[in-house]
Amino acid sequence: MGQSRTRVLVLNGPNLGRLGKREPDTYGSATFADLADRCVAVGAELDLEVEVRQTDAEAEMIGWLHEAADSSIPVVLNPAGWSHYSIAVADAVAQRTADLIEVHISNIHTREEFRHHSVISAYATGVIAGLGIDGYELALRKIAAAGRA
Amino acid sequence: MGQSRTRVLVLNGPNLGRLGKREPDTYGSATFADLADRCVAVGAELDLEVEVRQTDAEAEMIGWLHEAADSSIPVVLNPAGWSHYSIAVADAVAQRTADLIEVHISNIHTREEFRHHSVISAYATGVIAGLGIDGYELALRKIAAAGRA
Amino acid sequence: MGQSRTRVLVLNGPNLGRLGKREPDTYGSATFADLADRCVAVGAELDLEVEVRQTDAEAEMIGWLHEAADSSIPVVLNPAGWSHYSIAVADAVAQRTADLIEVHISNIHTREEFRHHSVISAYATGVIAGLGIDGYELALRKIAAAGRA
Amino acid sequence: MGQSRTRVLVLNGPNLGRLGKREPDTYGSATFADLADRCVAVGAELDLEVEVRQTDAEAEMIGWLHEAADSSIPVVLNPAGWSHYSIAVADAVAQRTADLIEVHISNIHTREEFRHHSVISAYATGVIAGLGIDGYELALRKIAAAGRA
Amino acid sequence: MGQSRTRVLVLNGPNLGRLGKREPDTYGSATFADLADRCVAVGAELDLEVEVRQTDAEAEMIGWLHEAADSSIPVVLNPAGWSHYSIAVADAVAQRTADLIEVHISNIHTREEFRHHSVISAYATGVIAGLGIDGYELALRKIAAAGRA
Amino acid sequence: MGQSRTRVLVLNGPNLGRLGKREPDTYGSATFADLADRCVAVGAELDLEVEVRQTDAEAEMIGWLHEAADSSIPVVLNPAGWSHYSIAVADAVAQRTADLIEVHISNIHTREEFRHHSVISAYATGVIAGLGIDGYELALRKIAAAGRA
Amino acid sequence: MGQSRTRVLVLNGPNLGRLGKREPDTYGSATFADLADRCVAVGAELDLEVEVRQTDAEAEMIGWLHEAADSSIPVVLNPAGWSHYSIAVADAVAQRTADLIEVHISNIHTREEFRHHSVISAYATGVIAGLGIDGYELALRKIAAAGRA
Amino acid sequence: MGQSRTRVLVLNGPNLGRLGKREPDTYGSATFADLADRCVAVGAELDLEVEVRQTDAEAEMIGWLHEAADSSIPVVLNPAGWSHYSIAVADAVAQRTADLIEVHISNIHTREEFRHHSVISAYATGVIAGLGIDGYELALRKIAAAGRA
Amino acid sequence: MGQSRTRVLVLNGPNLGRLGKREPDTYGSATFADLADRCVAVGAELDLEVEVRQTDAEAEMIGWLHEAADSSIPVVLNPAGWSHYSIAVADAVAQRTADLIEVHISNIHTREEFRHHSVISAYATGVIAGLGIDGYELALRKIAAAGRA
Amino acid sequence: MGQSRTRVLVLNGPNLGRLGKREPDTYGSATFADLADRCVAVGAELDLEVEVRQTDAEAEMIGWLHEAADSSIPVVLNPAGWSHYSIAVADAVAQRTADLIEVHISNIHTREEFRHHSVISAYATGVIAGLGIDGYELALRKIAAAGRA
Amino acid sequence: MGQSRTRVLVLNGPNLGRLGKREPDTYGSATFADLADRCVAVGAELDLEVEVRQTDAEAEMIGWLHEAADSSIPVVLNPAGWSHYSIAVADAVAQRTADLIEVHISNIHTREEFRHHSVISAYATGVIAGLGIDGYELALRKIAAAGRA
Amino acid sequence: MGQSRTRVLVLNGPNLGRLGKREPDTYGSATFADLADRCVAVGAELDLEVEVRQTDAEAEMIGWLHEAADSSIPVVLNPAGWSHYSIAVADAVAQRTADLIEVHISNIHTREEFRHHSVISAYATGVIAGLGIDGYELALRKIAAAGRA
Repeated sequence: MGQSRTRVLVLNGPNLGRLGKREPDTYGSATFADLADRCVAVGAELDLEVEVRQTDAEAEMIGWLHEAADSSIPVVLNPAGWSHYSIAVADAVAQRTADLIEVHISNIHTREEFRHHSVISAYATGVIAGLGIDGYELALRKIAAAGRA
Repeated sequence: MGQSRTRVLVLNGPNLGRLGKREPDTYGSATFADLADRCVAVGAELDLEVEVRQTDAEAEMIGWLHEAADSSIPVVLNPAGWSHYSIAVADAVAQRTADLIEVHISNIHTREEFRHHSVISAYATGVIAGLGIDGYELALRKIAAAGRA
Repeated sequence: MGQSRTRVLVLNGPNLGRLGKREPDTYGSATFADLADRCVAVGAELDLEVEVRQTDAEAEMIGWLHEAADSSIPVVLNPAGWSHYSIAVADAVAQRTADLIEVHISNIHTREEFRHHSVISAYATGVIAGLGIDGYELALRKIAAAGRA
Repeated sequence: MGQSRTRVLVLNGPNLGRLGKREPDTYGSATFADLADRCVAVGAELDLEVEVRQTDAEAEMIGWLHEAADSSIPVVLNPAGWSHYSIAVADAVAQRTADLIEVHISNIHTREEFRHHSVISAYATGVIAGLGIDGYELALRKIAAAGRA
Repeated sequence: MGQSRTRVLVLNGPNLGRLGKREPDTYGSATFADLADRCVAVGAELDLEVEVRQTDAEAEMIGWLHEAADSSIPVVLNPAGWSHYSIAVADAVAQRTADLIEVHISNIHTREEFRHHSVISAYATGVIAGLGIDGYELALRKIAAAGRA
Repeated sequence: MGQSRTRVLVLNGPNLGRLGKREPDTYGSATFADLADRCVAVGAELDLEVEVRQTDAEAEMIGWLHEAADSSIPVVLNPAGWSHYSIAVADAVAQRTADLIEVHISNIHTREEFRHHSVISAYATGVIAGLGIDGYELALRKIAAAGRA
Repeated sequence: MGQSRTRVLVLNGPNLGRLGKREPDTYGSATFADLADRCVAVGAELDLEVEVRQTDAEAEMIGWLHEAADSSIPVVLNPAGWSHYSIAVADAVAQRTADLIEVHISNIHTREEFRHHSVISAYATGVIAGLGIDGYELALRKIAAAGRA
Repeated sequence: MGQSRTRVLVLNGPNLGRLGKREPDTYGSATFADLADRCVAVGAELDLEVEVRQTDAEAEMIGWLHEAADSSIPVVLNPAGWSHYSIAVADAVAQRTADLIEVHISNIHTREEFRHHSVISAYATGVIAGLGIDGYELALRKIAAAGRA
Repeated sequence: MGQSRTRVLVLNGPNLGRLGKREPDTYGSATFADLADRCVAVGAELDLEVEVRQTDAEAEMIGWLHEAADSSIPVVLNPAGWSHYSIAVADAVAQRTADLIEVHISNIHTREEFRHHSVISAYATGVIAGLGIDGYELALRKIAAAGRA
Repeated sequence: MGQSRTRVLVLNGPNLGRLGKREPDTYGSATFADLADRCVAVGAELDLEVEVRQTDAEAEMIGWLHEAADSSIPVVLNPAGWSHYSIAVADAVAQRTADLIEVHISNIHTREEFRHHSVISAYATGVIAGLGIDGYELALRKIAAAGRA
Repeated sequence: MGQSRTRVLVLNGPNLGRLGKREPDTYGSATFADLADRCVAVGAELDLEVEVRQTDAEAEMIGWLHEAADSSIPVVLNPAGWSHYSIAVADAVAQRTADLIEVHISNIHTREEFRHHSVISAYATGVIAGLGIDGYELALRKIAAAGRA
Repeated sequence: MGQSRTRVLVLNGPNLGRLGKREPDTYGSATFADLADRCVAVGAELDLEVEVRQTDAEAEMIGWLHEAADSSIPVVLNPAGWSHYSIAVADAVAQRTADLIEVHISNIHTREEFRHHSVISAYATGVIAGLGIDGYELALRKIAAAGRA
């Protein structure tokens, strides 16, 4: 039944709410609403209860990560610009009690030098980068598979 | 007529609300209210509708930059401490659809090493530093001139 | 009388609200409530009026530091993850008009390389690190002693 | 029909033939044969004709990458130790005429400093790291999805 | 009367004589003569006696800076390529007895890494970069304003 | 009785014997004798048997640290100039069998770059810096508290 | 007579066999066969017996360099991707007993940072870069001239 | 009896086959055959069955290291030029199931900067450098001693 | 006829006038006059009108480079000591409208670390280093060949 | 006869007197007395007159190295913590008139980053690291062999 | 007699002509004329024929250094700002055929980081820094002494 | 009279007692006794009471520097190997109450990279390097001159 489905949070950091408007050469033409719909649909297919959120506020993101840690909810996290400096977000990730997969839409290794390193990756289960919004689907599949294992 | 005047946002980052109280040797004795009055008055002279805002919250600043991007509003931005690390703010600046001029009241090149580099400058139209609050007026003049060109 | 007691703010940064739940090997088993109680009790003993706060929001922390600067209130500050990048918080610390002691519960020098440097320390009166939550008590004692001197 | 299935090469670099024997804490207990079987099975499910190869010889890997480039065959590549220095392999990757997804079984960001950077990533479509051998399946799914798009 | 007007030197370093011919994508189509005319005209409007010079010779530039220092003449300086290495020019700037504003036509922060740092900035009053030849006008306005203050 | 009091060594490195004579702006006007008296008095209050020593000889300091390690004596250590290079002293600290608190009188983070890092801190229980000679008292209080715990 | 002609080896490293197919914007449209023909023809003109080889295998390249060292055969070497890391090839070059000229088809100084440095150059007679496949001809001319000197 | 003697592999990397011919000032006049004879003779004396191999091919070396790992055979390894970059060889060394001693004939610390660091040493039992071909004998003695312990 | 011959400037930077007197171990025994004669003779053979100049003055060199840019004259440039710091000369090179080949007589990669990098190379067509004054001849041949192509 | 035996000094730096007590996981359980006995015994077997010393005092170590230099006595040196900073000891080693072998008990390459480099190695004959106290025996054997050569 | 006196050139780089006017806190109040008189007077006393020159032009300085090299004239050189970047001047110094002593009036080690290193020192006989204009006298004395030796 | 002569300490660091024996190519053939005699003789000529000391012990050197600071005795200091790391000695120098001139016999800028920087120079009056033992005489002359000023 629905209530028994695994809950997953798909958390998105600053500026991602403008997806589609923002630098489409880099991020593609799908909007944030498209992304959210896609994640929910994939979740349904995988029997996951997916909730997609976005915030430009570091404190709100940290709160969501605490919520996930308190209830052992798996997380798909796109930390966006915070990836490269927010040790506060990294510290919240470090408290995770379930899998957390870091996703980047673009291939950060082909962009400016300072985007090649994420302070969060060392605390995540793993990282998917450069596969567009398909990266979110793949992360959800990994979470579903881990839940079945 | 007033409604046809170009709108300009003058956005100020953390701690700038304390201008005048804060380290007057570095930042001068003008208060933030003085700064705002000055910008509005210069704007009036240049036929610009200037709105001056200040926030200590990264998310609020990002929201204002989105607002400017959505409506192609030129921006004068003093990112203050965020200059040196907030890639989230830099990413919001990168989405600009009109000129954005970065202003620093003090000469950041005569201060601590870590203040010499701004992660935002590469995404701005240009930078004015070290000219006190006159820097804001000069930035507004550049925006007015660009609007006429 | 109570109203004549020196007021002290004990300000805590991101993720510290989860103390006790968070990585107990590193941070010990005391909860944030235990920490707050301990600080208030020590304050009472030292005739200090101690107020303990915690926030995950950089802007709120900056506001508290402004409040302390406006009223010359001494501060005990655990900047947590912000220690290593938030120049906005460091700028607020730099405006202090009374002693401000930076406290870290764990010994940051035995952890990851990026935790060895705090951008805030150069603006603080001094730093106490690695002494567990006793570090807060020691900081309060220093403030009490300085108040008597 | 079978002959119409998209061909995919799954190419593995040095020491991966010893999977399962090699540092199981880091790489898990599945053997290389298990990995190959898994990839072929997933491929069958996705209507991909998957061929799994492994070599300890840089020249052989470069030859396989040339073969893929000549026939526009998508590639899943685990460059293993070469990731961190072999610009010869990176140059071969740069010649790709179809998607190439770099996969790392372990989370390279939690290991030695020199493993945090891959000279190959900038030439790949994207990167999946830290998701165990599931990473291969996810990469194949992405290739299948891209083939359908 | 004319002789009572504040004198200002607008000094330009190597290769700037070829403005308009040189990389118009970066520097615009205005020629050096256009730039000089513009500065003189703006000066007239601001009651400044503006003299525009250009040299490819470090020694000549140093001599002009000595001349300005000897007579407390404000300076607008575009050090061009010298910005990034000529400590001899920087030492001459350091001797200034009036305001000296460093101007760069292009946004040096969007160009090669070695152009991000100017050895001269720490000795200047302030810096204007990326605002095209309008930057010269803004610098003259600042000098005029400072003269009136 | 006295003999049952916990013994504590307060060990001071090179140049500290000249306290009061040496750079009073940085180190205050208290002499080394004042410091020693203060430590002994605080120790008496805390029921600690405090012994204060100073040496300019690395070998003697290493010997004292061996003595402490052999008898599990807690240590308050001000390594002074050795902080920044003496791996021999750091190796001796690493052998400690009881708490060892590193103390710096001045805030080393506001001084020359090379003073920001101590090779000893990673082997100490914790660090107190910038609180003047009160730092010694705080360290002794921590040791007393730990002894009671 | 032919048998008295000086023998020269023209040795090419990884991926150069795909010349013409590979990134023609960077490497031009001539194929490897064209390159080989050109070198042999130039050699004939210069009375040199030129033998052109290519390999993707480091060991084979090292063997060829040993062969040249054993017989004091001059070498024209394009180490391609190995230039930037293969100290094994550099060590083989260091054993040379005749002139060895390192050639790069493209100007490595205009490409990625990591391509600016060759570990081999310090052991070569000299380097020619950025002159297209003409660089091979020039290298052969230098060898012919040195043979006549 | 012979069949009960401990087997030891003495593995040599690129260019070492030319020992004696190669830079005798650095490597001495003994040839590779001399080295092999010496190792076998010492082995006989120590009751070790010593097999000496050399290759210029990374893949072959990796295969030999796998062979040693599979049968817990102790190894004496001179990685020559690979020492400084081949993480593929280092990864093969990391799989060792018996002692592996890294040997360098020359003192790498007196040579070029890039030779001071070996990426392999962290995975070896230990390192012997600068003792000429005697280093091989010492390594064999250590292995013999460990076998007896 | 002579007037139809392609003109080429061979430009030499500081200290090269003393060729032959200067460090003959590094630069050979040919004098600057020999070099000039050689270039003119080679030019005659190649139907190039070669003009050889030398200056110790950066401004003069920049002027010559402007002259070449104005008339699309190919250049052979030995920037000597300026190679490693003169961004002013590099900026003049960047304005070239014809091929410009950078030549170094000695192999700069075997000399002091700071000589390994030239700030000019990224703006040149290509680079020839370490081939003695033959490098000039080869550069002229390349220019002649490009002129014929 | 005894008086004709070659004398060897085995010199040990700071903290080594505590061998066996100190971090046995890193250094093993043998005490310094065990080490000394072992060296003397091995010496007797090799017909060397071995004298083992230990000091925590840099000056004493320098004196012993002078003594060895004055009488051309071979040395086995474990510089312990001094390895990483004491240029004074390195300068004394540089004066050696006989072989000097640097020994480290543990594999310094598997420990903290700052332990990977020894300022002394460049002045030693060679280095043995990571082979436990067997490293001393191997060093003595090398000295004995060199004495016979 | 006069004509037999050793000739010495005292050469001064950019901005030194303004001595006394320039930053007297750093350089003292003596003018350049005072400096010149002092050098000539000291020369007379030491039987040296001293000629003092100053230039802001790199080319002129290089010419003077060539003149000294051609006639083996000892030089006292204050390269001022060129110290830190002019490899062209350094190359001219490298050609010296007599002693050349580099002098700095101020202690460059107490000033900005970039002033701590001189690219010229490695080519000079020696360096005197921080002793004011007495440094020139000491340099002349050294030259006189060397001439007598 | 003698008792009124200015006292000067000439202090020498580790290994300098072996002058003449030690690397004569670098340090010359004069012995330490020669150096001491020379300093005393020069002192007599200058009416200075010169006392020459040498130690290999950091603590003794620090004590001598304290002695000089206590009595405002000028010092000539050759810190030898300590120059490059001993912050303890540097701290003692920082306490000086009279001139202290740092002397190096050899030109440290032509030696190993790590010898180019002295941690002591920033605290000295000035530095003389590379002028052999004449450097000591020049330092004494400077002290004598300062005493007369």
